[in-house]
Parts: sequence; structure tokens; C-alpha cells
Amino acid sequence: MVVLSALSTDLYELTMVGGYYVKGMSAPATFDLFVRNLPPTRNYLVACGIEQALDFLESLHFTAEEIRFLRAVPALARLPAAFFDEYLPRFRFTGDVWAFDEGTPVFAQEPIMRVTAPLPEAQLVETALIAETMFPTSVASRAARIMTAAAGRPVMEFGARRAHGIDAGIRAARAAYIAGFSSTSIVEAGKRFGIPLSGTMAHSWVMAFPEEVSAFRTYGEIFGDAVFILDTYDAVEAARMVTASGLKPRAVRIDSGDQIAISRQVRRIFDEHGLADTAIVASGDLDEMRIAEIIAAGAPVDGFGVGTAVSTSSDAPALSGVYKLAEIERGGRAVPVLKKSPGKSTYPGRKQVWRVMRDGVAVEDVLALEGSPRPANAEPLLRQVMKKGERLSCPSLTEIRDRCRQQVATLPREVTQLVDGKRYPVHIRIGT
Amino acid sequence: MVVLSALSTDLYELTMVGGYYVKGMSAPATFDLFVRNLPPTRNYLVACGIEQALDFLESLHFTAEEIRFLRAVPALARLPAAFFDEYLPRFRFTGDVWAFDEGTPVFAQEPIMRVTAPLPEAQLVETALIAETMFPTSVASRAARIMTAAAGRPVMEFGARRAHGIDAGIRAARAAYIAGFSSTSIVEAGKRFGIPLSGTMAHSWVMAFPEEVSAFRTYGEIFGDAVFILDTYDAVEAARMVTASGLKPRAVRIDSGDQIAISRQVRRIFDEHGLADTAIVASGDLDEMRIAEIIAAGAPVDGFGVGTAVSTSSDAPALSGVYKLAEIERGGRAVPVLKKSPGKSTYPGRKQVWRVMRDGVAVEDVLALEGSPRPANAEPLLRQVMKKGERLSCPSLTEIRDRCRQQVATLPREVTQLVDGKRYPVHIRIGT
Repeated sequence: MVVLSALSTDLYELTMVGGYYVKGMSAPATFDLFVRNLPPTRNYLVACGIEQALDFLESLHFTAEEIRFLRAVPALARLPAAFFDEYLPRFRFTGDVWAFDEGTPVFAQEPIMRVTAPLPEAQLVETALIAETMFPTSVASRAARIMTAAAGRPVMEFGARRAHGIDAGIRAARAAYIAGFSSTSIVEAGKRFGIPLSGTMAHSWVMAFPEEVSAFRTYGEIFGDAVFILDTYDAVEAARMVTASGLKPRAVRIDSGDQIAISRQVRRIFDEHGLADTAIVASGDLDEMRIAEIIAAGAPVDGFGVGTAVSTSSDAPALSGVYKLAEIERGGRAVPVLKKSPGKSTYPGRKQVWRVMRDGVAVEDVLALEGSPRPANAEPLLRQVMKKGERLSCPSLTEIRDRCRQQVATLPREVTQLVDGKRYPVHIRIGT
Repeated sequence: MVVLSALSTDLYELTMVGGYYVKGMSAPATFDLFVRNLPPTRNYLVACGIEQALDFLESLHFTAEEIRFLRAVPALARLPAAFFDEYLPRFRFTGDVWAFDEGTPVFAQEPIMRVTAPLPEAQLVETALIAETMFPTSVASRAARIMTAAAGRPVMEFGARRAHGIDAGIRAARAAYIAGFSSTSIVEAGKRFGIPLSGTMAHSWVMAFPEEVSAFRTYGEIFGDAVFILDTYDAVEAARMVTASGLKPRAVRIDSGDQIAISRQVRRIFDEHGLADTAIVASGDLDEMRIAEIIAAGAPVDGFGVGTAVSTSSDAPALSGVYKLAEIERGGRAVPVLKKSPGKSTYPGRKQVWRVMRDGVAVEDVLALEGSPRPANAEPLLRQVMKKGERLSCPSLTEIRDRCRQQVATLPREVTQLVDGKRYPVHIRIGT
């Protein structure tokens, strides 16, 4: 894992930490990380990025070089020397964290993560925790919709080039895999997370040869197994040429044009010429709506490659993720606090989220103060994942992926359907 | 600079490189990196990320650990041992690169970067070059619109938490600064690129104190200079309290609500109580349209903080950036090539982009084959930036930022205006 530096933060976290240091304000504080509102095209989110956020908390420290840089930041110039000489070098995250299991559906206002730590520690990590969790949550949530649309057909993640930098692409690949994608194209994501890799040829391979058929034949000779890209010049013509040449690709990919009509023509040509086992993969600016359309039309498409739609969560590229102070100790007593800004007010106190199940189906969530009575038939969704800065568990990617499939399957169908879905009920049992 | 690993690529680049290796296909090839179509809300783009892309090309190599991983990738299993033992360890980028200067406006179909290198080298870098340039170009293009809207008022970049990971946030901070933003909040971006940093307090600072006024007073005492966040409970009430307490902040920030009405009330209170020099900064889900509205209303807002809109280019989170083979040497002769996929066809040959100027205003661009006659009053926009793998120049961020301001100023006003803008004419003088 590549873990974020301590300077992966907004400057104001550091000015505030400096201020708390000067005033000796280090009593425990509790912050909630949650999404204010769901985007219009999401009825649920899939919690993701939690493990990466915990990696950050676990490894958080300031290097000598970083502290040297901070000394020279004008906004920090009036802080005492001891802040740089003694406090920052020893700074570690020593708090408790409760969080959703990765892969679990989560809704607006529900703390995906709850941090209780000495005020400066809990404050400093705000920026990184939001960034580490919200982007993967965006991607996993979009990917879950795409898996619904694909209706059991495999979906490959192809979005590296359109991601917001390759690092974002790698994070997206992990989130998409958790939500059920079968593979990624990013080699670095395969290396880092063990995600299966896929990828054979681009149009440029075909164009690099004087003739299309020799491009295909050469690839097959070298690699044995191949997915031919069919639409460099004319996909249907290419299909005829493949059969006429006696080539037997495992699959072909159609990356442009009307994939419904083209896949039907290609399927017919293949079936008539002994290539009934050659699969057809569609790609090219696909999203869940286009995939659903292809499947609804009964087009003979056996799998999909999805890029931009998943790696940028293009229809909802940001979530309204925030990290808000909910409780602070004053004079040895925990005091619930809240913010009243117009349209941005928050719920006070230390919270738990309960999911009420009926016959294996999630019927409602309850957001309540910790310690309030457990609702009937409800399971708590916030679990302690870090204690005094120590990680309590480290699930494998496969475990997370399996859980995601199981947990998304508990949602009512009217919540997971792609259009005209219903909002899932979240009862907030906290006064303001 | 943090530079991408050689595995920051799609798997198919590596299978194709392996195939070219086996077949001894290493003749020079030329690829164009360009945007197919402008997003609906962009009449121009600002070329960005070029220097980072060149950093990648300059440093590209496979480590022993990376090669070990690649040996075990099933898709590469049939490649000869010499590919892993001899070819990959020595792999370097030795090609020529022509590119737009960073900060220069660029339009659809214009190669922002043109790579000529032995086929496998030119192929391998596709994914990383697209990712390194397209996201910064998205951000700089949005940021340029925001600067137009802000009409000379300073704009601070606040988008770290909503970016697609902090790495994306850091890239966005650089792109926004190039396009004219005055600062970033991300400490790591300040350290890496020397961008001025800004940031003082969040709502949590105010909430951590029993009383708002003591939060403000304490901050002022410690730091001398301060931007008080005014809307934790009620911004107008807070403004009255500030004046009543004799505090003299440099600025206040209004992060929610109707910033037009609130800024007027706050301005009146401050002016009546001797705080005429205290500036008012607006933030909170701002984009260029909201900023234009605030300014058109004559609201007394002296500066802006912008987050999600710039760090995710939220209205156009991905560009249709592609990297297409345009020419390849066959039998010692350069052969122009093109792709004919429906809706995705390309222009063949090695290209230059010319910008025709009249009285200091850009009036049209001409996309033509290299070596064709220079149009009257035109400057070439593709400059050689790398020769046989060696970087030819390394402009400073300040130079790039200055150039961006100058170059965007040469665009016709009807192209840069925020709504109902006109498309800029690009004449394509290449047959297909």
C-alpha cells in the first residue's frame, strides 16, 4: 500500500492543531464522517475506502523533512518552537475508530466512520479520511449499479486513462472489484491488491500491421488466447474475415457503434462458421443505462468493459462527504455539539447506525445515540475497527467483495433498481 | 515530484509491447494525444499536465520487483524469457515528443502531445500520458472559467477532500494555480510545487470552544492574522459579536446560506463598526456560475474559496482524451494510418497545429500535416519538448502560470464567456 504523507491535509487542520496545542486542548472529541445527501442517481452508497483510511491513521507521522517545511509556512510562523521540535515529531494517531464494514450499503447522514481521539489528532485527519473514503465509496456505488445492469455477466474495469490520475485509477479499480467487477486493466492495481488483470489489444495493434487479419493471426500465435478488437475499420467485415481465416479467438470486443445491431450480426456470422464458443464483449463509453439497454434488447453480449463511468463515477463525481464534530469533552464531561449553518446543520452526539432486517431484507435503518436501546430485529453497522490507534482486524479483499455481494443483495429491489428507485428509509432518532 | 511506476498502465499495453518484441516490430511510430470533443460546458481547454507526463517518460523503467510481478501475470506467460530477462530491464523511453506549452488553450482534435518513438515505447506510455495530461487539463480548463467569473478577485483552491484521492487533489491544486488561482489548501501541494498555502479555521474550531467569541479571540491571539469562519451558528449574529468584542480579523468567511444577502449584512455591520478593512470571503459549493451571480449582484465579496467544482471538474469530470496511431514506418517509409470506427475515426499523419492571430486576438487554428505551408499570421503550437528521450526544457510553475494568463487573454471574448459562448474555429486541413 502507498500511504499518504502527513502533509496530505488542508493547511487549516494544521493551524487548528497548532492552536489546540498552544491552548492545551487535547480532551477527547468525536467526529462523524458522513454523506450529507445522496446524489440524484444513487439510492444507496457502498461504503468503501475504510481500510485505506485506517492504513493512513496507522502510519501517520511527520518526517523531519516535513517538519522542516512546516516551520517555513507563513501561517504557522507564530507557533512556538516546541510545536515543531517536540509535538510534531511525536505526533501519532492514538484514537478509537468505529466504521462500517467495507462493502456495506450506507445512506445519507449515517456515519460511515466515527473517530474519537484527542481533539488535535481527530482534527488533523479530517481531510485525508474524507478523501480516502469518499472517492472509493463513489466508485463502489456506481460499480454496484453497473453490476445490477449487467445481470450476472462479467464486467471488466478499463478506466485508468480517464481516472483523475493513475493513483485515482488504482483506487477505483479496488472499489470496482469490491462491488463485483471481475478484473481491472491497471497492472499496478493487480500488483498492489491482487485483482485479476485483463487486457489484450488496442486498435493500434491492428493498425500497426499492414492487414487486419495478420494482426489477429500474429497475436493468436504469440499468446494462444486472445480477445480480438473488431472495430478498427468495420466490425462486421472483421468478423467475416476472422471466420474466413480459420482463426478461433476466445472472444472479440466491439468498442464503438451500435453494439446491439453489430453484436447480433457478429454472433450470426460466428455461429454459422463454427465459432459458437467465441464470446462477444462490448465496451466504449458504457454505463449502467446503456448496459441495461443492451441486455434488455437481448443482444448477444457476454461481457462488458467499463471505463470512465466507473473510474470517475462520472454521473456523480463527488459526494457531499463531511467530517463533523459531534461530541467534545469539557470539564471531564462529554458534551454533544452541533452546527446550525443553513442547509448544513448536523446531529449532535456519539452515534450508532442500526439496520432493521425482516426475512433477510433490509427494511429500514435507525440512526440513534450510542447506548440507546437496540431497535427490534436490528444489527449495529458501526463496528470498532481501531482501539487506541491499533487496528483490530484486516479483512482480505475477497472477504470484502463477498460481503458486498451479500449485503447489497439484502436491499429491497425498489432501492437497487436503476431508474425510478425508491429512497430507503433512515429514521433519525436524535434531537437537535 | 512523485513519478508513476512503469506498471501505471493498462495490461494491454504490455501484451502489445510483448507482441511487438517477439515480432521485432520496433520501427518508429507516431501517436497523437488529443481530445475528441469538448464537453458541452467548455469552449476551450487549457493544456496542462505536460511537464508531469514528461517526468514520467524521463524516468520510465522497470524495477526488478516489477518484472518479477509481470512474469507471473497469466496473460504474459507465453512471452519468451528474454522479454523479462533482457528487454524489460533495459527498457527506456528514447523517443521525440512535441507538445503544447502548458497553460495554452487547446481545442478538440488538436494533438496536445505528439510522440514519435520505436513502436513498443510509443505504445507502452499511452495510458499514463492520457491520465497525466487529461485530468490536469480538465481542472485547468474549469479553473480558467472560474477565474473569468471571479473578475479579478482572488480565488483559493479548497478541493482536497472531494478530489479523487489526495494525489488527484495535489494534481488539481497545481492545475488550478496555473489557471490563476491564488493558493491551495493542500500542504503537500505547497511543499511539492511551491504553491502559496491558505487556510485558518474550520467550523470545528468554533465548536471546540464553549463560546464562538472565545474561539475567534483565541485564534487571533495565537496567530495574529485570521480569517474567521462566520457561519457555524448564524453568520450575521457572529459579525455583530465580532465587532462588539473589538476583534479585528483580516477577513471573514461565509461558507453557507445566501452569500449575497449575508455578505451585504455583514459588510454593513463591519463598515459601521470600524472594520472597513476586513475582507469577506465566500465559499461552500461555489462554481463559476454562482460566483458570476454573486458578482453580478454587486455583493461585497472580496474573494472566493472553491473546492469540488475545481478539484473534480465536476460538470465535466472526464475528457474524451485518446492517444491514436497516426503514422508508422513500414519498409523504411512513413505511412500515415487512421482508424474508421463509427464516431471514433481519426486523422492520419504527423501533424502541426497553427494559431492564426489578428491584432493580438486568436482568430482560428489550423490542423495540418507537418511540413505543409505555414498559414499567414500563424504560430505553431506544437514545440519539441523531448529529443531522443532527453527533456529540452523545464519551465517553472510561475512561467507556466504567466503564460496561461497571457494566452487565455488572446481568446475572443465570445469563446471565454461563461454562457452562450461560441465555438472557436479549428480548420482541419488533412484528408482521411
